[in-house]
Amino acid sequence: MRLSRRIEGITGGGSDGWELFYRARALKAAGEEVLELTVGEHDWTTPRPILDAMHAAALAGHTGYAVVPGLTELRQAVAARLAERTGVATGVENVLITPGGQAGLFAAHMAVCDPGDRALHLDPYYATYPGTIRAAGATPVAVETRPDDGFQPRAADLDAAAQGARALLVNTPNNPTGAVYSRATLDGVAEAARTHDLWLISDEVYDTQVWEGTHLSPRALPGMAERTLVVGSLSKSHAMTGSRLGWVVGPEEAIARMIDLATVTTYGVPTFIQQAAVTALGQPALEREGAEVFRRRRDLAARTLDGCEGLRLLPAQGAMYVMLDIRPTGLSGEAFAHALLDAHRIAVMPGESFGQAAAGHLRVALTVADDRLEAALETLARFAAALAAEAA
Amino acid sequence: MRLSRRIEGITGGGSDGWELFYRARALKAAGEEVLELTVGEHDWTTPRPILDAMHAAALAGHTGYAVVPGLTELRQAVAARLAERTGVATGVENVLITPGGQAGLFAAHMAVCDPGDRALHLDPYYATYPGTIRAAGATPVAVETRPDDGFQPRAADLDAAAQGARALLVNTPNNPTGAVYSRATLDGVAEAARTHDLWLISDEVYDTQVWEGTHLSPRALPGMAERTLVVGSLSKSHAMTGSRLGWVVGPEEAIARMIDLATVTTYGVPTFIQQAAVTALGQPALEREGAEVFRRRRDLAARTLDGCEGLRLLPAQGAMYVMLDIRPTGLSGEAFAHALLDAHRIAVMPGESFGQAAAGHLRVALTVADDRLEAALETLARFAAALAAEAA
Repeated sequence: MRLSRRIEGITGGGSDGWELFYRARALKAAGEEVLELTVGEHDWTTPRPILDAMHAAALAGHTGYAVVPGLTELRQAVAARLAERTGVATGVENVLITPGGQAGLFAAHMAVCDPGDRALHLDPYYATYPGTIRAAGATPVAVETRPDDGFQPRAADLDAAAQGARALLVNTPNNPTGAVYSRATLDGVAEAARTHDLWLISDEVYDTQVWEGTHLSPRALPGMAERTLVVGSLSKSHAMTGSRLGWVVGPEEAIARMIDLATVTTYGVPTFIQQAAVTALGQPALEREGAEVFRRRRDLAARTLDGCEGLRLLPAQGAMYVMLDIRPTGLSGEAFAHALLDAHRIAVMPGESFGQAAAGHLRVALTVADDRLEAALETLARFAAALAAEAA
Repeated sequence: MRLSRRIEGITGGGSDGWELFYRARALKAAGEEVLELTVGEHDWTTPRPILDAMHAAALAGHTGYAVVPGLTELRQAVAARLAERTGVATGVENVLITPGGQAGLFAAHMAVCDPGDRALHLDPYYATYPGTIRAAGATPVAVETRPDDGFQPRAADLDAAAQGARALLVNTPNNPTGAVYSRATLDGVAEAARTHDLWLISDEVYDTQVWEGTHLSPRALPGMAERTLVVGSLSKSHAMTGSRLGWVVGPEEAIARMIDLATVTTYGVPTFIQQAAVTALGQPALEREGAEVFRRRRDLAARTLDGCEGLRLLPAQGAMYVMLDIRPTGLSGEAFAHALLDAHRIAVMPGESFGQAAAGHLRVALTVADDRLEAALETLARFAAALAAEAA
């Protein structure tokens, strides 16, 4: 039986570039010891007070249908958070609670793109972006950023690609690059959006993990609140990846239509999870403590790899990864990552898994204990140095 | 800023026919005592053993990203359940776990419909059906069923509508009508699907609530497993409406593509909820006990309304509602329901909320304690009798 062309096209055909990840998982499943520095997943579980709040809410009887737009108390908490971060007045009518940030990204693209529309995203990119755009029936168009620019997008590149497009998806702090977009970068983003009448979809799920500079939401820039949909989540900030709790914040009319969409796609988010989210957002120490771990490991990575022949660490300004430029070894990111997995059973993501712009790079997730991370990075550094010496 | 035409079209414009429901809720919010017999929501919470299993899973560390297709143990349990009910060999590769049955309905339509495709559903229908089809970019086409046929669809009507369509959505046991489709009805459904090369999307979320006859899944019929997507859920069977736990069962290739879709729309279902679902499915007594309550109340309703002038109860064969034909009163379902709410603060759903075919009817949810239900039905019967006497 024939399936829809749309669903058959979601992956874009060919490989998804995540072979390294699957190989590492297969080795582990076969009983081998593999150190995974691949996925953006904490090496700790959701904090106990959040889980206890969830159970208490369930026992208190909050097990029936949720109101589709989200619990008023949670929408208020998210609105207050966004108002504080963007300086833009934000009410419950500007907030839709979604089952995770990914559901927010999909809903945002469904809200602004019709079939055949061009939707821009930046390269390198988080793995689901092109498929999310295709699932909404639109055509993904990648705009390359450059390692030499610290992967900050250039205004001229955005302007050139934006003609006739409907939407632009940006992500700051950025996965996989660790870039935190500067005010100048975001002015360019906003200018392209205003000039070409684009919707801006701003993925800000790493906004609590900022090591250099300040997180600035493009929603805060002049004329942008009316055309920006901010996607957020508790996954990264509160180690709640498995709870699937996110949101979209945007203009009231857009949120109202996205509630129509939520009614027929998800029909709300479990109320007991939303109650747990209220608890999570009410305890700023939880997200501060979580972020500190990644800041410490990011500094550790910088110290450990300092002066290493064969690779160059791009100083992460935010998020839970570091990018390594391994072009001095003469290998692609893919070849290097597979060789490292073969030789040392250390799994890191090839830059090529995130698009063409990160070719010749590796993304290392800072998601194991400091001592194991340090040892792995030392091994990786020796490996790169040997390869570079060979290549020289 | 312009939104997508698709998202602006989800509601189909105009009213959603649920004014009665919103009015009742508004009265309650204003402090009035209103007896709600509107939504298909149990008057008890999710059973404690299920909630305890959920919390135990969370405390045991299952708080990270779920595998997108669903926990293998849960997929196995669903596969075994479907194999037993349909006689069709079913493996984990045939099962996708979704955040609720509604997400399954949406995914199924996304999987088989491209923009502009015609997708059939029956009238009367569950409120989200047309919007679900529109959100997938397809065009909903309602096929009317008749009160005099007990709302069982006629093969000739299906055949006439199916020309050029891509999908047919059926629901047995049926909401709102309480019909359980007979073997003859389902043979007609299957014949239309095979003749016109349709996908059959079979919403079977009430399959544990059968009071007369036997639930038969159309997936079990000859040549149908390859073209049928069964949507199921624990919402109705286990009073887990708020947990958002459902599934789609279908051909492996369709499920594989729906996993691609899930990756970019929901990114999995909380593992701790899936563990709770494994517990739920492992205790058949839980669903049996839940069903017994509605069977008892359905019998109570039949006894209470027997011989009442002014209305006729359509004997529900399944599900948690009864339908009342109130045409002898001369009022529409809508006018009757609003008048009943005005006079007695009892809220029932007008048949018109579910399409044209149920005009002149009421849907009464059996979702309050027996004594309150009995008293409400007695009041409703007197109200109908008085109206009918006036109309005569």
